[in-house]
Amino acid sequence: MVSSPDIPSPRARPRFELLTLGDELLLGLTANSHLAFIGRELSRRGVELARNVTVGDAADTIAAEVRASWASADVVILTGGLGPTCDDRTREVVAAVLGEELVFDPAIEHAIAERFARFGRAMTPNNRKQAFKFARGEVLPNPNGTAPGLWFTSDRKALVLLPGPPHELHPMFTEQVLPRLARLGLLAAREPYVQFRTAGVGESLFETKLQPLFDRYGDGLNVGFCAHLGAVDVRLGATDGRLDLERLERLTAGCERLLGEDFVCYGHDSLAKVCADLLRAREKKLAVAEAATGGMLAAALTEICGAGKFFAGGVVCCSNDAKIQLLGVPECLLKQHGAVSAECAVALATGAAEIFGADYAVAITGATAAGSTAPWGHSPQGADPAGNGSAQENPVGTMFLALHAPHGVWSKKISHPGPRPAARERAVNAALDWLRRELVRAPASARSPREDSALRA
Amino acid sequence: MVSSPDIPSPRARPRFELLTLGDELLLGLTANSHLAFIGRELSRRGVELARNVTVGDAADTIAAEVRASWASADVVILTGGLGPTCDDRTREVVAAVLGEELVFDPAIEHAIAERFARFGRAMTPNNRKQAFKFARGEVLPNPNGTAPGLWFTSDRKALVLLPGPPHELHPMFTEQVLPRLARLGLLAAREPYVQFRTAGVGESLFETKLQPLFDRYGDGLNVGFCAHLGAVDVRLGATDGRLDLERLERLTAGCERLLGEDFVCYGHDSLAKVCADLLRAREKKLAVAEAATGGMLAAALTEICGAGKFFAGGVVCCSNDAKIQLLGVPECLLKQHGAVSAECAVALATGAAEIFGADYAVAITGATAAGSTAPWGHSPQGADPAGNGSAQENPVGTMFLALHAPHGVWSKKISHPGPRPAARERAVNAALDWLRRELVRAPASARSPREDSALRA
Repeated sequence: MVSSPDIPSPRARPRFELLTLGDELLLGLTANSHLAFIGRELSRRGVELARNVTVGDAADTIAAEVRASWASADVVILTGGLGPTCDDRTREVVAAVLGEELVFDPAIEHAIAERFARFGRAMTPNNRKQAFKFARGEVLPNPNGTAPGLWFTSDRKALVLLPGPPHELHPMFTEQVLPRLARLGLLAAREPYVQFRTAGVGESLFETKLQPLFDRYGDGLNVGFCAHLGAVDVRLGATDGRLDLERLERLTAGCERLLGEDFVCYGHDSLAKVCADLLRAREKKLAVAEAATGGMLAAALTEICGAGKFFAGGVVCCSNDAKIQLLGVPECLLKQHGAVSAECAVALATGAAEIFGADYAVAITGATAAGSTAPWGHSPQGADPAGNGSAQENPVGTMFLALHAPHGVWSKKISHPGPRPAARERAVNAALDWLRRELVRAPASARSPREDSALRA
Repeated sequence: MVSSPDIPSPRARPRFELLTLGDELLLGLTANSHLAFIGRELSRRGVELARNVTVGDAADTIAAEVRASWASADVVILTGGLGPTCDDRTREVVAAVLGEELVFDPAIEHAIAERFARFGRAMTPNNRKQAFKFARGEVLPNPNGTAPGLWFTSDRKALVLLPGPPHELHPMFTEQVLPRLARLGLLAAREPYVQFRTAGVGESLFETKLQPLFDRYGDGLNVGFCAHLGAVDVRLGATDGRLDLERLERLTAGCERLLGEDFVCYGHDSLAKVCADLLRAREKKLAVAEAATGGMLAAALTEICGAGKFFAGGVVCCSNDAKIQLLGVPECLLKQHGAVSAECAVALATGAAEIFGADYAVAITGATAAGSTAPWGHSPQGADPAGNGSAQENPVGTMFLALHAPHGVWSKKISHPGPRPAARERAVNAALDWLRRELVRAPASARSPREDSALRA
């Protein structure tokens, strides 16, 4: 929510650029997760990245981009190319562009050797190149890898080199880079925009619905939309860089009222996180049964801290045998209606609630593009004439969801042709959104879990 | 593998640049998945993207980048900013930079209106802006969304605008953009490099092991490494742009021999895909039981087409109740050893194999940073004095894997402190790699499934 009453204004809009280096990014072998991570970390501190450039491992290409960014930006962040192998050239190229000397630091070499010793391995000679630093710069220790980061400042401008592996980069960025940027006065206290998430309305209808509200706020308002699979995010900011928080608060509250149940949350919480919070507040537990989505729904829910408090468990049941034997789906029901049916979804949901002793249960069954859900019997002979029609009735992309709640059980048909991974993700989001709406309507527990544990303590 | 004997040489190295547009990318709200997708699709056709630039939605910023890319590149691909809302400005900005007129196309408007009608919605007026095209360009229909793509050529240079949502962009790129690029002679027949995946050896040790082999091939060889969570990819290409396939074939075969079981596969297959192929070739089925990874392993396996052929099912069992009641883990075992133990992992794996009637089973149990795996009993009173010690013995990041095979069951302890998502992914990869090594040693079925179905046909 919008809570801070004012924003300390940092010096006039420092420009941040991110250079992500590596052939593997351009060849599509690795996703560029650094842009999302660093962009998010900076935006939460009042900075919007001006630009991200990705180029390969060739020294002349890297040099050209570093030169251009260092000339125009106040802060240049480089990722990748600091490792021990022959294609890691960032350190040397940047030193040349900055006109800085690289000097050997025995302390770095010692840390690398210790790390190898801890894992019971011998340090190979090519690791030694990671022990060089800028003569006038700082070393950023890397607790999760061999290559340290390097930090260089000049004229209140900063340049930082970070290793490519995300589990090394992330803690180094939050624990070492952000505090240094704050000390240089380059960060603000909060995000320069308000974001909220919605579900169930299309991007264009959505703007039409909210536009009359936005129009009242004139040109000073900067509106951004971002459509996901089954959700649309809305960002509201001020075009002139200064936020009038009182007006933004009134506006976002107006959006929330207008959207009703289609309003999911402020900020960046996932649908799974929103459902988890609602379940916890109601002291209820959820179970899942998945055929078409094969564990994706359970994985999304267990990603959340303390999932044991609201998640009872899940079954991944692609085969009819598993549906019958583990979840008690009647064999005759499968023969009559097929596995891709409302009837089967309902039986899966009630079965999951029962075996896990859960208050709520969600089931997903369906035919995705690749047909992972087996039709009944696997062969023409095994198929019941009545049930066998389901493949024709339910084209690829058709799925059935079921929701079991303390006061009833319902099913819903959804249809998302298109690529398999997207169809699976859409089904997971549709199931979570349905659960969210149901939970919003259910009253929160009179005695919240927090009060309960406080009483026990 | 390296099979094509020669590569039709496209005209001298056309330069491809990708401009990904959207504030949400720079704010870290959405991952830039277009770089990975388009980079991969192009690299499979002999083209390495020269550069990817991401900038926000401001018109002047977009114009500056388009102008720079169009001046230096042969092909410029732009994504995002084609939608119906007020922050979608790409179409107009690009037209201005190219000096092209935008003209209204009633056929596009008709297609958009039809799409709305199909979903039972009214077309809102702001959708009309999507019906404009370049006077001299082509329209690329969008079967999965409202905004069509636009294609423009001039002097054998091409510029293409594609909508941002991945499920809209992907089919448009492969079905409409790639054929047009091929017709312009801008694509080659195959990848300009050979890649293979390895597991179980670190990046630096790895280079030391293979370096003597690489040294024999001199400066013409371009070696790239990319470390993932538990795997290292190696790319071998020719620095001068021409591939001597015979030499590369000899070299990669040498790497495969030298690496033995640490060699996973040629190309880009996931560990799950490799395991799936091995299971299918052996006509065996796999079941999984997941506590710490909560469905991620099952989701990775069911992502593969026809998962029903090799995947029997899975249970996500975060609670002790689920472990006991669904998978038959003895209560006394949990009390004595705790849920995070080798004993529990073994019981989970054998339980999963039994209830799903599977030949192989993998179990993952452990304490991740956020502690989703509940300790025994949830309260001090419920905990057995002997079992209660497990939290001290097993610090955060410790997990136990178990592998059940037709001829035995084994457990393994792994330890990955660090952020929770990475720890979960590492555990999934470790489990799949273990299964892979076990399957490689098991003989393939005398009669492969393919032969079998051929006999039946």
